[in-house]
This record gives sequence, C-alpha cells and structure tokens, in this order.
Amino acid sequence: MEPRLSLVTLCVTDMARARRFYEALGWRASGPAEGVTFFQAGGMIVSLYGRAEQAADANLPAEGSGFGGIVLAHNVRERADVDRVLDEAAAAGATILKPGHDIFWGGYVGYFADPDGHPWEVAWNPGFTILEDGSVRLP
Amino acid sequence: MEPRLSLVTLCVTDMARARRFYEALGWRASGPAEGVTFFQAGGMIVSLYGRAEQAADANLPAEGSGFGGIVLAHNVRERADVDRVLDEAAAAGATILKPGHDIFWGGYVGYFADPDGHPWEVAWNPGFTILEDGSVRLP
Repeated sequence: MEPRLSLVTLCVTDMARARRFYEALGWRASGPAEGVTFFQAGGMIVSLYGRAEQAADANLPAEGSGFGGIVLAHNVRERADVDRVLDEAAAAGATILKPGHDIFWGGYVGYFADPDGHPWEVAWNPGFTILEDGSVRLP
Repeated sequence: MEPRLSLVTLCVTDMARARRFYEALGWRASGPAEGVTFFQAGGMIVSLYGRAEQAADANLPAEGSGFGGIVLAHNVRERADVDRVLDEAAAAGATILKPGHDIFWGGYVGYFADPDGHPWEVAWNPGFTILEDGSVRLP
C-alpha cells in the first residue's frame, strides 16, 4: 500500500450547512454529485457525505461516538497566520476548541471544530517546510 | 484558509503496535520524535499520536466515542488493486469491515479498520484521475 491518502471524508448531518461552512472558508466545491460534496485540496480530496450513509457503507455505527480520534491539520507559513485562520473559521461558524498558543515543541497552534464537530488544528511548525504549492515536507 | 490538509493525526493507544501496522503496509516512519510518529504521505503527513495526549491538546473528550465520522481513503489505479490492498492490510493486522464490492456509482471499494479502529476505504473510482505521483484529481 503506497504511503498516501487520497480522500478524507467528513461525515455530516446537514450537507447544506457543512458546505456553506467550507465555502465560507474559501473552498470551492466541485460540480454537483448526488449526496456528496467534493473539494480539491492540493493533491487530495476532502469530501462531505451523510453520516448515516457512510456508516452503512462501511459497516460502522451510525450513532454514539463523538471524538473518533482523528484530527485534521492545516499548517500555515507564518506564526500570525494561525490566529488569522482561527478568526476566519470562527466567522464561518466554527467553534474554537482552543485559541492559538505556544506549544512545547516550538510551534504555535490552535484548534477549531467544524459544524459537525470535526476537529482541525491550525499550526505553525517552524520544523516543517511548506512548499510553494502548499504541500508539506518532513525534515 | 487555503483548501488543503497538511496532516491527519490518527490517535493511538499503543504506539508500537500502530507503527508496526503502518510499517507492515510498507510505510516508512520518519526520524524519531518524542511521542509521535510521522509518515510522509505524498504532499502531506500522516501522524500517530497518543489519544489521551491529543484529546488534552485539543480540549476533546479522551473517552467514549467510537466512529467519529471521519473516513480515510486510499484510491488505487486498477480495480484488482482493491482486493490486493485489503489482503495486505488484513495480513498487517487490520480488521476487514467490508470486503471489496461493486458500488452504485461504478466503482469497486472495500473497507478496513486499522488496529485503533480508524476506518480506511480502499477504492477504485474510474471517475478520478490518479497522477504519476499518486495524487488524485477531481474531474
């Protein structure tokens, strides 16, 4: 299995609300597809899909849960970009889980949750290289 | 906020076990970092990190949950690759949630869960282009 991730599907309970949120962040949804919304995110795809449908598709429980142990991260080039992106997310309807703060490994990070509760970390990590096209490279 | 995902963190309860699993799939962990394992995954990074630590970092509940409504996908170039990757995952210690099967939109997909229960879809989608470098492009 090649070391790559092609898609991350975020399950939603209200597609219109979820789509509005990501569009308010400046993401552009790709042409209409029934019951699913796709965003090109660099070399991969982020998709929005109904939680019940996804649970049925993958034999996963539709109910219960909460934090499933997956956190998405968006890394930025400058320290000040963290607060800017958190503000932008809050304005688009996100819940701020934790405001920007210095962290022991030398970075500056904050967290928000999207309207379905999916956690996002917004991070400035001076140890990671962000290329021109936005992709990140480990040292 | 640019439309890109920099990192996906998979929370784990047993780092050695989780790392062994992804290494058994052929992924190469990057140099040692305290308490975290990084894999370069194309232009992004997949990281393994303790669940309790992550929950504390992001003000998320450490307990409870189960399916958190995020599904990771690995898209392959050929239909037959789906079963091959599912077999490889099972051999590495994954639980097969759903074996490969035809799906209404014309693709062929199956699902496995990694040792911490994180769901992965393995998909052949004739409508998506997979570039030379493994990145995917929406039509």
